Amino acid sequence: MNKQVIPDIIISRLPIYLRALRHMQAERKLTTSSQELGAVIGISAAQIRKDLSQFGEFGKQGTGYDIAFLIEQLREILKVGRVWDIAVVGMGDMGHALSRYQGFRDRGFRVVMVFDNDPAKVGGQVGHFVVRDTKELVAAIRKSGIKLAMLCVPASAAQDVTNLLVEAGVKAILNYAPISLSVPAGVRVQYLDPSIGLQRMTYYLD
Amino acid sequence: MNKQVIPDIIISRLPIYLRALRHMQAERKLTTSSQELGAVIGISAAQIRKDLSQFGEFGKQGTGYDIAFLIEQLREILKVGRVWDIAVVGMGDMGHALSRYQGFRDRGFRVVMVFDNDPAKVGGQVGHFVVRDTKELVAAIRKSGIKLAMLCVPASAAQDVTNLLVEAGVKAILNYAPISLSVPAGVRVQYLDPSIGLQRMTYYLD
Repeated sequence: MNKQVIPDIIISRLPIYLRALRHMQAERKLTTSSQELGAVIGISAAQIRKDLSQFGEFGKQGTGYDIAFLIEQLREILKVGRVWDIAVVGMGDMGHALSRYQGFRDRGFRVVMVFDNDPAKVGGQVGHFVVRDTKELVAAIRKSGIKLAMLCVPASAAQDVTNLLVEAGVKAILNYAPISLSVPAGVRVQYLDPSIGLQRMTYYLD
Repeated sequence: MNKQVIPDIIISRLPIYLRALRHMQAERKLTTSSQELGAVIGISAAQIRKDLSQFGEFGKQGTGYDIAFLIEQLREILKVGRVWDIAVVGMGDMGHALSRYQGFRDRGFRVVMVFDNDPAKVGGQVGHFVVRDTKELVAAIRKSGIKLAMLCVPASAAQDVTNLLVEAGVKAILNYAPISLSVPAGVRVQYLDPSIGLQRMTYYLD
C-alpha cells in the first residue's frame, strides 16, 4: 500500500463500499460479489475490483468477498478501526444536530468538544457537552491532540474559524458552511453542503 | 448539450464550480481563470477547462472567464435558475436543522413541507412549518408536484420512507440516513453522511 500512488478518487469510494458492506452484514449476509456490491452502490463491478486490487487480494474467484474480512480490511485502510475524537464548532441547528448525531457509532468517530462564540450559548449544554468559548479553541484542541473538526459556523465566519483550527493542529475539516475554505498543504477539507447535493440531481430533472 | 454523453462525474463538479464562482462574485471579482478557480477548489485547471468545454465556450484565451456570465450558464445547465420545492422527512435534529437552513437561499431551493410519523411531533411547529403526518406524505407530495426530498429519518425507517417518496413522484432524494437506499431507475439519491466525509480524510492522517 503506497499512499503516493493511490488516487484520491479511489480513497473517496472506499467509505461507500464500507457502508454498503456493513449494511449487508447487518442483514446477516456472509459473502458478496463485486457485481452485487456494485448493484447496491451504483458503481460498476469492474471499478470495484480495480479499486480494491490497489490494496491487495480481497476476493476469491468464484466465491467472492468474505464480508467481515473485507470490512476489517477497509477499516484498517481508512484507519477507522480506532475511534477519532472530533471537535464541533458552531452551535446553530446543524452543530446541535451533529453534536447529538447517533450515526458516528461504530463508524470510527465521536464528538468530544463543542464550541461557539455567542456568549448566550457558551457555558450552556448541548447533548452531553458544555459549550466552550471559541476563544479557548486553539489551546483546548492543541492540548487534547484532536485532529478532526466539523465546521458549522455561518459562511462569514468560516475562514476565520478554519484558521484557528489549523493553528490548533487540526488536519481534517468537515465543512458545513456553504463556502470554499483555504487551508495549507497537509490539511484536508470535505464539504457537506446540501445545496451541492441537490444541484447534482436537478440537472437530471425535467 | 447532450445528457447521454456527459459523465456523472463532470456534472457532480459543476455545483462546486458554481459555489466557488459565487464566492468570488461576493468578493466583487469580475473575471477569473481556470488556474485561479482550480487553486480555490483543488482541481486542476486542465480538468476545469475540459469539464466546461462539454457545454460550450465560456472563456476567452487571455482574459479568462466572466464570472457573472459563467454563473448564469452553470445555473442554467444545473437548472437552478428556478427555485425547486423540497419536502423534508424526519424532524429529528437534522431535519430541524435543514428545515430552518438559511444556505438554500439563492442556491435554487426552498423547503415547503416537513413530515414526521411521531404523533408527538405531528401538528407541531418547526421553523415556519407545521409538521405533517408521514401518512399524508404520498398524497401531499403528489398533489404539490414536489420532485425533491431530504431524508432525515433513522436508518431503520429510511427504505420504507424512500418507497413512499418514490410512490409520491419524488425523483431526487438527499439522504442523511447512514444507509444505502434502493430506488428504481429514474430516481436519484445523493448521500450526505458525515461519517463518509470524515472517513475520506482519516486515510491521510497519521
